[in-house]
Amino acid sequence: MSQATMTGVINGVDVDRMGQTIHAIQQNPSLGTSQFRAVNRWINGGHNRSTIQSFYSAGKEDTTRTKPFVLDADEPPVLLGKDQGANPVEYVLHALAACLTTSLVYHAAARGIHIESVESTLEGDLDLQGFLGISNQVRKGYKSILVNITVKSDASTEELRELAKFSPVYDIVSNPVPITIQIDKQ
Amino acid sequence: MSQATMTGVINGVDVDRMGQTIHAIQQNPSLGTSQFRAVNRWINGGHNRSTIQSFYSAGKEDTTRTKPFVLDADEPPVLLGKDQGANPVEYVLHALAACLTTSLVYHAAARGIHIESVESTLEGDLDLQGFLGISNQVRKGYKSILVNITVKSDASTEELRELAKFSPVYDIVSNPVPITIQIDKQ
Repeated sequence: MSQATMTGVINGVDVDRMGQTIHAIQQNPSLGTSQFRAVNRWINGGHNRSTIQSFYSAGKEDTTRTKPFVLDADEPPVLLGKDQGANPVEYVLHALAACLTTSLVYHAAARGIHIESVESTLEGDLDLQGFLGISNQVRKGYKSILVNITVKSDASTEELRELAKFSPVYDIVSNPVPITIQIDKQ
Repeated sequence: MSQATMTGVINGVDVDRMGQTIHAIQQNPSLGTSQFRAVNRWINGGHNRSTIQSFYSAGKEDTTRTKPFVLDADEPPVLLGKDQGANPVEYVLHALAACLTTSLVYHAAARGIHIESVESTLEGDLDLQGFLGISNQVRKGYKSILVNITVKSDASTEELRELAKFSPVYDIVSNPVPITIQIDKQ
């Protein structure tokens, strides 16, 4: 991002503060180090609940969030749940949609590109044979995801795509992330 | 999953219905085909909102969800938002926690393993230099995720880990998913 000539608020993003943040991290790359967290507790069957509050970013623990976000996940009846929340793979689509949108909007702001509206629809295709262990030739997760984004802006579709692809969740889903699972028995 | 000898409800999961579902998909693998969906709309700055309702599973469009789940995403102040929802990478951790838990609980039920409690804490490490475009040597998404799961059950930690790893979101995050992005200008 080049912030040299941008000032004020564009697309709801404070471009001056964004420039200061970028400058600070350029001067001291360790300020880019961030950690996000979630705590989840099983309730029953397919129903469980996450609380999300603390995180570390820009060189310190956050102190501004005074209460957690509480998120319920469940499965619909056809998948043996009681539908008390979106299911985990639906949350992935929400995370991806939200991140593509924010990345497009923030990076547009940094370039002085005004965005009037962004809407997206996402479809993830999955074969239950994987999760159910019926076939080990079938992957458990999405085999593909299709994202349609409609944007009102003067920028070209190619530039808008380039901006959206700064998305961390796009990277997380389209590329491998190493996950370490530790299990403790109580 | 082998369902032959399991009956009733274990861990809140109807094992009889699970066995029927597995049998039906074994007989007609096309019933495994599923599609999940999300629609997202940008509000302002880092704030956007998904609605999640329709999906296709087990050979038909769902008709049981009479209203959508509505999910807000935003960024905290230090990331130039107004903290009106968890941020997209936090939603990824929720999706992963929820999916590991449900997968563990469902597959335990299928094996007749009783689970008393499951709690998990997740930490995702990310360097903002990637998202901000400061360094193209730094990835935009999580460089790693650490999951700690505490389970009360008679099963061994190794078997519990094996059950959790049936998780579709674990597959989605730890392996590449092809994503197609179409951008339309309004």
